[in-house]
Amino acid sequence: MKKALAIDVGGTKIYSTIVTENGEITGDVEKHQTPKTFIEIQKLFKDIINRYENEVDVIAFATCGAVNNTNDGILGSTGNIASEYPTMVFKSLSKKPVFVENDANAAAWAEHVIGSSKGMPYSIMLTLGTGVGGGIILENKLYKGKYGAAGEMHFKMRTDKHRKCTCGSWDCFEAYASGTGLKKTAEEISGDSKITTYDVINQKDRPIMKKIIETWQNDILEGIIGLANIFDPDCIVLSGSMAEFVDIEYIEAEANKQIVTTPFKVVKASAGNYSGMIGAALLALSSQT
Amino acid sequence: MKKALAIDVGGTKIYSTIVTENGEITGDVEKHQTPKTFIEIQKLFKDIINRYENEVDVIAFATCGAVNNTNDGILGSTGNIASEYPTMVFKSLSKKPVFVENDANAAAWAEHVIGSSKGMPYSIMLTLGTGVGGGIILENKLYKGKYGAAGEMHFKMRTDKHRKCTCGSWDCFEAYASGTGLKKTAEEISGDSKITTYDVINQKDRPIMKKIIETWQNDILEGIIGLANIFDPDCIVLSGSMAEFVDIEYIEAEANKQIVTTPFKVVKASAGNYSGMIGAALLALSSQT
Repeated sequence: MKKALAIDVGGTKIYSTIVTENGEITGDVEKHQTPKTFIEIQKLFKDIINRYENEVDVIAFATCGAVNNTNDGILGSTGNIASEYPTMVFKSLSKKPVFVENDANAAAWAEHVIGSSKGMPYSIMLTLGTGVGGGIILENKLYKGKYGAAGEMHFKMRTDKHRKCTCGSWDCFEAYASGTGLKKTAEEISGDSKITTYDVINQKDRPIMKKIIETWQNDILEGIIGLANIFDPDCIVLSGSMAEFVDIEYIEAEANKQIVTTPFKVVKASAGNYSGMIGAALLALSSQT
Repeated sequence: MKKALAIDVGGTKIYSTIVTENGEITGDVEKHQTPKTFIEIQKLFKDIINRYENEVDVIAFATCGAVNNTNDGILGSTGNIASEYPTMVFKSLSKKPVFVENDANAAAWAEHVIGSSKGMPYSIMLTLGTGVGGGIILENKLYKGKYGAAGEMHFKMRTDKHRKCTCGSWDCFEAYASGTGLKKTAEEISGDSKITTYDVINQKDRPIMKKIIETWQNDILEGIIGLANIFDPDCIVLSGSMAEFVDIEYIEAEANKQIVTTPFKVVKASAGNYSGMIGAALLALSSQT
């Protein structure tokens, strides 16, 4: 059975493991702190690859940042370390083929192949964490757009420049639907600048916390309605650490009442915490055949 | 050369003409009032078809309403007359093949084949008229979604239920970017419920009208930024009667400053007033080969 060495490159942690062509993780998942410099990251990648490249058919990276359509480099700057990686660096890391995909795209692919959106040709995954990641599957293929940057969930929730987004623009879906967005919403509603998402979740039966969660969840709902009207998808998959605080049944019922397109499902991701590595591995292995 | 009889079915007017496989209109364009009843419309369709079906290879409808993926019927109800048409009616209208597509989708296809987005694999057309139509071209194909309803530009511009949309929901792009949206924005800014889009355009150098147009245009810009971040397209095409009041150069420059994806163009449509018929004809003719 074919295998990939999968490496997930995040802003704070780097994970690695071996994934089979069936999407199964074999053996341990290694966890490393993301080093601060380009040189150290490269050294870590080489160390991981040297230990495993003889066992696998391909090296698969799931990384933050938009990845190009040739899956060998990162497009432009996204403010994180991976964006400093020129195309040639990835290729030169191993004697085996090296394949790179955006982490949210990779995770969406894992859901499509082995998870909640399996068997559905049209799905959109929203990863609700510190930020919001997006992955779009259309006609059973990962949709990347003209250069590979598609699926950025930076569409506007309001137009009066109310809340700054990490992307430099204002009021993007990410700035409301993310964990950071929940904290901001909590600050605005409570007037307390020190309130945390932990406070909100832990005291979720208090009326004010209820209102905060409802407001945050309504923003997620409104974004999902827009995506369903644009794409007419089979389903929208919610993943990430914040997804567990969303009332999926409510969102599905309410969104389906408001869309002008055709009925769709809202589901939670089921491919697990390592779906980014699994998806990147599956994409990498299928790109070799 | 192959030809189609093209029929454009709008809420108030029905047009018909002959279109060649090169996208050229040959002969006159007939214009009819849209009859009020199903029976009268059917009679008008049959009359047009009887006169021309022997000259053409296919009958091509461009219609309001979402059209299914088999291009022979309309999905669900959209509040206009065409939605009452069951699948079998279209098929039985002629001895020649009958092909149906949504008017905005058809117009987007015409731009892709003979107009402003020619040669670009990824484009989104926004038709700014009384409402807003949308057509999405991805990888040189018309994108329709799971049942054919995709491309509805009903994503939210705010989340506080401020302005009702024709779709029944609140604050959709259509409710702000359309001509109707411009009137609403003018009412809100001027406090005058009788103000018309004609007043705004005609007195556009007055400071208050300037502010109204800038606000309306900013809503269009914000919507375009979202679409560019979601799709990473080659271009966004603006068409429809309201498009001429949009400062395309400004929108393109400003949107490109704010997106996190890769640079894209904003262009005006160039396939003309009958692009719906042209696009439907081109799609219909290519579906026969």
